[in-house]
Order: sequence, then C-alpha cells, then structure tokens
Amino acid sequence: MNKKPNILVSNDDGIDAEGLHRLANELKKFANVYVSAPNRQQSSVGHSISIYYSLRAFRYKKDNKFFGWAVEGTPADAVKLGVLFLYKDIKFDLVVSGINNGANSALAIIYSGTVSAATEGTVLRIPSVALSLVSSKRNDFKSTARLSAKIIKQLVIDNRNHLTSSTLLNINFPPVPKNKIKGIRVTKQGKSNWSDRYEVRSDPNGREYYWLKGRMNVLDKENDTDVIALRQNYISITPLHYDLTDYHKLQEIELWDLKI
Amino acid sequence: MNKKPNILVSNDDGIDAEGLHRLANELKKFANVYVSAPNRQQSSVGHSISIYYSLRAFRYKKDNKFFGWAVEGTPADAVKLGVLFLYKDIKFDLVVSGINNGANSALAIIYSGTVSAATEGTVLRIPSVALSLVSSKRNDFKSTARLSAKIIKQLVIDNRNHLTSSTLLNINFPPVPKNKIKGIRVTKQGKSNWSDRYEVRSDPNGREYYWLKGRMNVLDKENDTDVIALRQNYISITPLHYDLTDYHKLQEIELWDLKI
Repeated sequence: MNKKPNILVSNDDGIDAEGLHRLANELKKFANVYVSAPNRQQSSVGHSISIYYSLRAFRYKKDNKFFGWAVEGTPADAVKLGVLFLYKDIKFDLVVSGINNGANSALAIIYSGTVSAATEGTVLRIPSVALSLVSSKRNDFKSTARLSAKIIKQLVIDNRNHLTSSTLLNINFPPVPKNKIKGIRVTKQGKSNWSDRYEVRSDPNGREYYWLKGRMNVLDKENDTDVIALRQNYISITPLHYDLTDYHKLQEIELWDLKI
Repeated sequence: MNKKPNILVSNDDGIDAEGLHRLANELKKFANVYVSAPNRQQSSVGHSISIYYSLRAFRYKKDNKFFGWAVEGTPADAVKLGVLFLYKDIKFDLVVSGINNGANSALAIIYSGTVSAATEGTVLRIPSVALSLVSSKRNDFKSTARLSAKIIKQLVIDNRNHLTSSTLLNINFPPVPKNKIKGIRVTKQGKSNWSDRYEVRSDPNGREYYWLKGRMNVLDKENDTDVIALRQNYISITPLHYDLTDYHKLQEIELWDLKI
C-alpha cells in the first residue's frame, strides 16, 4: 500500500479531550487524519442522532492551526456529518472513535457515545474502531495512543484485506503500564450490569432534581468476556454489529401463536 | 391471574403524544397503568441516558387529574427513573413504549428512542415491548392501540409464563385499517438502510446550519424481515436483545494475530 490511509477520528468526550489529541498525533505518523468530534462532552448519549434539531460545525484550532471540526451534536452526528459533508471529498479507510476516558464493556456498550460513533462509521460502510481506556487515577493516554496506533496500523496497512466495511471493533485497554499488559484477547460482550439508583438533591430554590448513581455488578466469570479480559490486564477486542435480532427467540415466539 | 398486571408506559414522542394516550387508555381496561415519559419530543435519541446532567420530573395532568410523570430527559431516562424512583414501590410486569409515530424497523432500530425505552426495561429485568405505527397521511392510533392492547393482554395475562425478564419485542404496525392487516409475522431486523445527505441552510445572520435528510433504501427482499412484513401489511414482531457481539467474526479475528 503506497498511499497513506485516510482516517476519520471522533469521540464522545469532546474535541478538546486528551485521548483524542494523543490518538490523532500517533495516527498522523502513518495516516492522513481528519477530525470531526462533538464540541462538548457527550458521554452516554448512545446512538443519538439529530433529526429534530439542525446541526452546526465550527473550525477548531490547536496551536493556531486547523485541527478539526467541532460539531454541535452527538458522536454519531459528528461522524455522519464528517463523512457525508465536512470531508465529503475524502474516501475514508477507517473511522476511529476515542480514546474514551473509561471502559466501554458489557452493558456500557449500549449507552456509549464512543461505540456509537464507530457504529455510525459502519452504517456508512467504513470499517470502524472504538477505543476506550479503563478509568484509573492516572490514565496514561500517551502510552494507550501508541498501542492503539500500533494495532490500527496492522489493521489498515499490514492486514488491510481483513477489514470489511461492516467490521466494528470495540477495543478496551486495561489501566496499567504497557509492561503489565498481558496481550490481546478477542472477547464477547459481557453480561455485567449496573446497580443503579437516583440520588435526590434540592436546588437553591428548593426544587428536587435527580442524579443517576451506578456501580458495576461484575456478573461475568468467563475469560472470553470483555469485562474479565480487562480485569486480567488484557487488551480486549470485541467485534460488534448492529443486528439486534435475538435469533434464539425467533422460533419460540412463532409458537406463542398470538392473535389479532 | 387474579390481580391486574402493572404496566409502565413510556415513549419517545413525548408525554402529550396521541399514540401514548390512546395506548394508555386501552391498557387501563385490564392493567394498572403508570406513565413516565419524556416531557418533549425525543425521537432518534437512541439509548442516550443522562449521567452528565441531572434529571427533573413533573406531574403531568390530563382533564385535571394526574396522568403520569413528565421527565426532562431521554426515553431511557424516563423508564429508569420511573422504575427505580418515581414508582419505586410498584413491581412492574411489563414496560411498553409507544405507540411511536413512524416505523422502527431495520437500521432505524439503532437510533430509536422508542426501542431504547423498551431496551431499558429489559436492562431493569422487566419484559418490554416497543410499539410503532408506520407513518401515513392519516395514522389511526385508536385502532392500533386496540390491537396493541389485544396482543399485550395475550402476553401478560393469557400467556404470562412466556415472558422472561430478557424479552424485548419490537412490534411495528402497517399503516392500513384493521381489515387490511393480514396477520402477525415474527421477523428479524432488516438490512435496509438510509441514503443520507445534509441540506445546508443559512440563518438570518448568514451562518450555516445543516439538516439531515434521509430516505430509506429498501434492500431487504426476504419475507421474514420487519421491512418486508410491513410492506405486505403484516404486523411485524421482532425479538431484540442488547448483546451486540458479532459472533461470526470472533474466530476470524483470533486468526489476525494482532501484536502489541
């Protein structure tokens, strides 16, 4: 492959997030990097997309140079607008979303803006990767960005033919230094969920408001789940798709013989 | 079953939407109905949930009587807050989301607030149903609500033991009178997608903004897909889940032998 691959970079933590800048810098060493990301924090917005409201996009500068487009919208908006409009003359080889500050494993995947930006890439028929780093007191985005770039280089240059337009890889990194990482494990989405509750607060005018407060219940036990791979200090790679059909249930429901 | 089932009703079109009121009225004939729905239009917000912002909820009245809670948040917020806080003393037998104004089939499912409200029900381990009526010039929510109630009654009363806490049924109705409906078909999520583009407009101050403009590409041909069932005037029932793992791809990726 002679020409450099074209990579669209987005995220859900917003265009000024450290994880995105570290990642873009590393990818620029072997790729043409184009950034289209939300202008502000958009964690847990899922696959939200703007159809009821219109979008705007602004040129975001870094060190006085154009760095990318800041989209007043969701992660999925940023990717769709980036591919179809802002960079419409570019043929993208890959969409990369991240590096998210916090894991996107098990149930978190369905709420994740990071994953949804990558899902939107595959909706647009571009192979896509979501990158997340498990939160820790001292997240090392620099080292994670280097590892991410190394993996992505293998995907788009060394093994280019592996990637199909429907490939969506959800990659999570454990929160440990590189020499403590045991390797890569290909995993399935875990079943771990959250114990959620709402904390009630009162505003200065005495009116109630509610904060969601969740804690993960680690229900997974198998090594081949994203949650356990991360706990064992492996990088977890889970192939995802957006066919939500529960195929096991299809035939069962036929037998229910519902009437109208 | 002697006691009436407890049903939480939500939607993504907002608590004042006709589809929700028609549905609630029909369900009240055999169930205790509790409403927790977004206070405004929340179409296509996907599985967005509020963790970065707090929530508020207001008592919504109809004919001077309490009708339900209007939540300043997303459909998933409305269901989570409804189950865990607003109606925390109720043991729900079912979460029902809808009736949405417009189909939620094929690719639309991943963007759908209606489906996500039902998904959130299953996250909370309550069997859940999403209801949508394909848009037409003259949507008949009254008739669709009656049909919906008939199906739901069979699920929670007549065949109660069929429903498990992980059951999520995505039900779409064709936009035709009851006598033109050919029956119920159990389907899988179709592959049809959208041709999207952005329309550029200029505000009164001369600044650009963008509207997403999509049109469905009907790529499906098989009768057992949601899209085709609806086109053939069947009610489509698709069992969904939120395990997004692409199991076909798992082993293939092992063979890629990625290095770090």
